[in-house]
Amino acid sequence: MFHFFKYNWQVRDEWFDLLQTLSQEQLHQSRTGGVGSIAFTLFHVIVVEHNWISGLGQKALSGAEFKDYQGIAELRQLSQTFRKDIEEFISNWHPEMAQKRLASKLKQEEESFSYPEILAHVIAHEIHHIGQLSIWARELGLKPVSANFIRRGIL
Amino acid sequence: MFHFFKYNWQVRDEWFDLLQTLSQEQLHQSRTGGVGSIAFTLFHVIVVEHNWISGLGQKALSGAEFKDYQGIAELRQLSQTFRKDIEEFISNWHPEMAQKRLASKLKQEEESFSYPEILAHVIAHEIHHIGQLSIWARELGLKPVSANFIRRGIL
Repeated sequence: MFHFFKYNWQVRDEWFDLLQTLSQEQLHQSRTGGVGSIAFTLFHVIVVEHNWISGLGQKALSGAEFKDYQGIAELRQLSQTFRKDIEEFISNWHPEMAQKRLASKLKQEEESFSYPEILAHVIAHEIHHIGQLSIWARELGLKPVSANFIRRGIL
Repeated sequence: MFHFFKYNWQVRDEWFDLLQTLSQEQLHQSRTGGVGSIAFTLFHVIVVEHNWISGLGQKALSGAEFKDYQGIAELRQLSQTFRKDIEEFISNWHPEMAQKRLASKLKQEEESFSYPEILAHVIAHEIHHIGQLSIWARELGLKPVSANFIRRGIL
């Protein structure tokens, strides 16, 4: 399962490279669907991944705010910083953790999710949002980053 | 890894339910990005998944053609038929298969992919294209199917 994290990070880094050519206006322009803009999509996938993994590791949430990460350079830096935490979590993973559950306060009623369920959720979450970016990139005349998992040397 | 197939199938079935309210014109309208239309996106994810799994199982490709699956009912039927083949492949999976490779003729030069690499590719492929559908759905005023992996009872 952790191979998908590596995939998402490779793809995300390639999106940073591609999108650094855009103006701030293009990055922040309001768009239909998803979370509403290219910049906020990047912030959102970075923070959602880190929040869930912080939860699994029983660590405090970062509290990162979008207003502090308005450009590609800042977003890339945030991504790199958070990635270290996630790599640490992954390197400390042991099979018994697959039996653990995390209580969540996302909804009014109490609920909990298994650790593997959350890892799968985080993975699918980013791939889904990157699919949205690919549409917006085409609308801007850009060739999207490849979503291929093959030919990345990951598995 | 196979849990993601179940996820993709649940999500796909929910998209069929949502999109059956659309007209043929809306389904086939040319759109920016992705593979160019809602209907062709659905056909594409169904056939690409089945082609790769047929390859892994050393079976002939189906040769299904888009012209024969123009409506949601036909696409749903194709999805259900192909799913049986994929379920059979999954039920016959054994760990040694993770060491196997499939030679591919996708490019001029010879290349091969490991079986896990192909499974991961098929999984990410559909999630990515569904992300694109979610943008197009919003443009049509529809609330997209949830991409959440949590709360599906899969893991």
